[in-house]
Amino acid sequence: MEVKITEVGPRDGLQNEKTPVPTKDKFEYIQLLVKAGLKNIEATSFVKKESIPQLADATELSSLLDFKNGIQYSALTPNLKGYEAAKNAGYKEVAVFTAASESFTKKNINRTISESIEGFKEIFEQAKKDGIKVRGYVSTVIDCPYEGKVDPKKVLEVSKVLFELGAYEISLGETIGTGVPAEVERLLEILLKEIPANRLAGHFHDTYGMAIANVEKAFSMGIRSFDSSSGGLGGCPYAKGAAGNLATDDLVYFLEKSGVHTGIDPGLLWEASAFMEKAIARDLQSRTYLATKKKREV
Amino acid sequence: MEVKITEVGPRDGLQNEKTPVPTKDKFEYIQLLVKAGLKNIEATSFVKKESIPQLADATELSSLLDFKNGIQYSALTPNLKGYEAAKNAGYKEVAVFTAASESFTKKNINRTISESIEGFKEIFEQAKKDGIKVRGYVSTVIDCPYEGKVDPKKVLEVSKVLFELGAYEISLGETIGTGVPAEVERLLEILLKEIPANRLAGHFHDTYGMAIANVEKAFSMGIRSFDSSSGGLGGCPYAKGAAGNLATDDLVYFLEKSGVHTGIDPGLLWEASAFMEKAIARDLQSRTYLATKKKREV
Repeated sequence: MEVKITEVGPRDGLQNEKTPVPTKDKFEYIQLLVKAGLKNIEATSFVKKESIPQLADATELSSLLDFKNGIQYSALTPNLKGYEAAKNAGYKEVAVFTAASESFTKKNINRTISESIEGFKEIFEQAKKDGIKVRGYVSTVIDCPYEGKVDPKKVLEVSKVLFELGAYEISLGETIGTGVPAEVERLLEILLKEIPANRLAGHFHDTYGMAIANVEKAFSMGIRSFDSSSGGLGGCPYAKGAAGNLATDDLVYFLEKSGVHTGIDPGLLWEASAFMEKAIARDLQSRTYLATKKKREV
Repeated sequence: MEVKITEVGPRDGLQNEKTPVPTKDKFEYIQLLVKAGLKNIEATSFVKKESIPQLADATELSSLLDFKNGIQYSALTPNLKGYEAAKNAGYKEVAVFTAASESFTKKNINRTISESIEGFKEIFEQAKKDGIKVRGYVSTVIDCPYEGKVDPKKVLEVSKVLFELGAYEISLGETIGTGVPAEVERLLEILLKEIPANRLAGHFHDTYGMAIANVEKAFSMGIRSFDSSSGGLGGCPYAKGAAGNLATDDLVYFLEKSGVHTGIDPGLLWEASAFMEKAIARDLQSRTYLATKKKREV
C-alpha cells in the first residue's frame, strides 16, 4: 500500500509565521525533511514579495535546492511570472491555488473563481510545453469562513476545470479545519463519481482536532495522497496554541500504526520539526511531536 | 440518535494535576459542567488519601453535590471501604478499575487482574443490595506501556467477568493514546461478537492525536457511550503540551457537526474548561477549546 505525503511545512507552514525564518534555516529544515524520507516537498511560493514577505526569498532558497536528488520539489505559482521564476529555479512541479467558495476567492485573491482559473490557463499551457507538472489546490472544500457550508458540486466543478486544463492532481483543501468525517464522506462520494481516487489528495487542518479522523475517512474511500506540515506548522500563529495544518508527525504515526508503510523515519522527522520549532521560536502543536518530545525528555 | 458522554474531568482529569485545586473550585467546575448540559459526571475517587492527594477531598466535595438534580454522579471505588464512603456520600453509581494487561495492573495496583477483580466482588454484591449501579473500567485495551500490544481476547475475558459480576457498562480505556482506528476496529469486532454495543463505552486519550478518529470508528460500529474530560484535562501534566484525555470539547464538536445531538452547549462547556484552566494554572490542550478561545479573543 503506497501513500504519497506532500510536505507543505516550508510553504504553507511558514507563510504566516510572525518570526521571519532565515533562508539558511529554511534550507537546513528542507534538508532535514529529505533526510527523514519525505519525497514530495512544497518548498516555497513565487508570489509578489510584498504579499507574503515570509516567502520573499523564494528564488534564493530555491537556488540552494538540489533538483537532481530524487525529491519532487514544488512551488506555488499564482501567475505566469511566478511560473517562469519557478521554472528557471529548476522546479519540475508547480501548484496553482483556487477555491470552491466565491467569497473566499474574492477576499483571498480579489478575483472570482473563474477569473482565477482564467489566469492559470497560460501556466498550464506553458507547463505542458516545458514538461512541468501542475498540481491544483481547491480550498474551502467543506466550509468557507465567509459563506459557511460549501456545495460539493462546486468543488467537483472547479476540480474538473483544473483537470481539463491539465492538473495531474487536485489537493482538496479543508482550509479552516471545521470539517468532520461525515462531510468528507459526502464530498468524496460526489467527487469520486467522476474523478478517480488516485487524482485527489486530502489537505486537512487540525483546528478542531478532526484532521486524522478526516484522513482516516478519505483513506477508507481510496485516497492515497495527503498534504501535511511537519510539527503541525502553519495555521494561525497569532493565536497561542491554535492548531494549523495536519502534522506530518501525526499523519506518519497514524499511517505506520495502521500498517501503511510511509518510508519516513519518525525520529528524523521529529528532528526536522524540532529544528523549525527553534527557528520560529514558538511551540509546535503536533500531538505526536509533543508526545515524542516528552519521551525524549524522560 | 442518542450518545452518552461521561465527563471524567473532575476525577481522571484532575488526579494527576500538579497544582492542587481547592474543593470549592472543583465544585464550581462541576456546577459549570452541569450548566453546560453534562448528565453523567465522574466526580471523584474514594481512594486512600496518600495514594492520590489530588482527590483526598472526595467526601468533602461529594457533600456539596446535589444528588437529586437529575445528574448521574459517579465515583471510583477501589475497595469496599471506598464503596461505602461513596454510598454514604449519596452516589447512585460507582466505578471499579482494572486492566487487560497483567504488567500494567501489577505496576498500577500491585495485583494480578484476577486479584483485582476478586477484590471487587464484595463491591458488586453490596451494590446489588443497595441498588447502586457499577461501571467497570478496563484499561490498556489496545497497548500497554509495559508489554506492548494487548490481545483483544484478554479484553473480552476481563470484560465478561465484570459483566457477570454485575457491571452495567464497561468503559474500554485506551490508556496511553497510542491506538489507531484499525486497532479499535479489530478490538470491537471481537468484543461485539459476545457483548452488545450498548454495554460498551469508549475511553480514548489524545496523546498522539488519534482520539477523534478512534471515536469515529467506534461510533461507526455502534458504540454510543464515550468518556471525555473538558478541555482535554488529564494525562501527563508534567510534560508541557502533551495531550491527555479526549477533550469533551472536541467530542461535542465532532458529534454535533456530524449531526448527533448531544444536549451540550459548546459555549457553556467552554466556560467550564476555561474556569478549570485558570484553577490549574496551565494551558489546556483541546483543539476545539483553543480554537474557540482564539475566536473569543478576536
